[in-house]
Amino acid sequence: MKTEVITITTGSVRGITDITRAADAFVRGEGDGLLSVFVPHATAGVAIIETGAGSDDDLMDILDELLPRSDRYRHRHGSVGHGADHVLPGIVAPSTVVPVVGGRLALGTWQSIVLVDPNADNPQRKIRFSFLAG
Amino acid sequence: MKTEVITITTGSVRGITDITRAADAFVRGEGDGLLSVFVPHATAGVAIIETGAGSDDDLMDILDELLPRSDRYRHRHGSVGHGADHVLPGIVAPSTVVPVVGGRLALGTWQSIVLVDPNADNPQRKIRFSFLAG
Amino acid sequence: MKTEVITITTGSVRGITDITRAADAFVRGEGDGLLSVFVPHATAGVAIIETGAGSDDDLMDILDELLPRSDRYRHRHGSVGHGADHVLPGIVAPSTVVPVVGGRLALGTWQSIVLVDPNADNPQRKIRFSFLAG
Repeated sequence: MKTEVITITTGSVRGITDITRAADAFVRGEGDGLLSVFVPHATAGVAIIETGAGSDDDLMDILDELLPRSDRYRHRHGSVGHGADHVLPGIVAPSTVVPVVGGRLALGTWQSIVLVDPNADNPQRKIRFSFLAG
Repeated sequence: MKTEVITITTGSVRGITDITRAADAFVRGEGDGLLSVFVPHATAGVAIIETGAGSDDDLMDILDELLPRSDRYRHRHGSVGHGADHVLPGIVAPSTVVPVVGGRLALGTWQSIVLVDPNADNPQRKIRFSFLAG
Repeated sequence: MKTEVITITTGSVRGITDITRAADAFVRGEGDGLLSVFVPHATAGVAIIETGAGSDDDLMDILDELLPRSDRYRHRHGSVGHGADHVLPGIVAPSTVVPVVGGRLALGTWQSIVLVDPNADNPQRKIRFSFLAG
């Protein structure tokens, strides 16, 4: 298995970062198989959505409503609302699998792989790509 | 890796389509391994739930409440509520993996693999099955 | 593929059970590959979150709000609220994949693999681990 951890700079902004290009580069030339995209953080998830037409911000807005950034959480470390960040991976899992055909991600036309990171306190995030050939 | 894209007709109705039988046929006789079920669309997801006792409609109802079909979304293409369709894959991912043992899906008794498609405008949908033997 | 079904005792309490140790034992010494964690039940999911600081209970609380335990559901078997249990796997999927490197789960420092089981009526639950080497 080919596996690699990349670091991406999300800056101090909450939100969604498109990682499709990095995933695509990782599998290029690898033939057929499955790509595992795994985020080794407890306050972020990975999703496959359309980007560039507003849906990334729409998703963040919805998540802020489903997981209110209040002081309601038992988890009390960090700033107010950080408890919500820790619930997020229960809804937006930190793991997904994308089929790879002929060294290309078999994504649909409008799909991008994105990091969903509600936490502005971590300017850098790690993502592990793993490719299992078959 | 054995991989194949099937087309299913969902018609003009929003909702859930059971694809267990197609998945089962795809892996039949393949031995042990992992089945990737991947939906190459930006407005649909895949889930593993019980069907036939109302839970499929219950899931659609809940999703309509969590993702209201209003004009609140930045994403403005298509009819009102289509913005919600684009958020859905952030909550119900378009990718799942099912273990296969002896050429059979290792599903529980009450589990079915379903396409979750809130979008009535697409009468046909594609699904990619990929089987990685091990 | 190495595959095994374990039985865990969740007792008569609703909630989250950490299964990281069992997953870790399953892959120990297996080299590199992907671990599939699959719950063959229609009323439970699997998540990867932090445990031990309250986020497990926070997640259950949020899920109880998103999926109210009322008589609103079409699914009518079991006690009141059981309809919600059947919707849960649509939101918290019963399947996830964790990369394994050198016989160790490649989890982040604060991540644990957990069973999310809102159903107090099942004191025992099964989980299938499958390891595909690569």
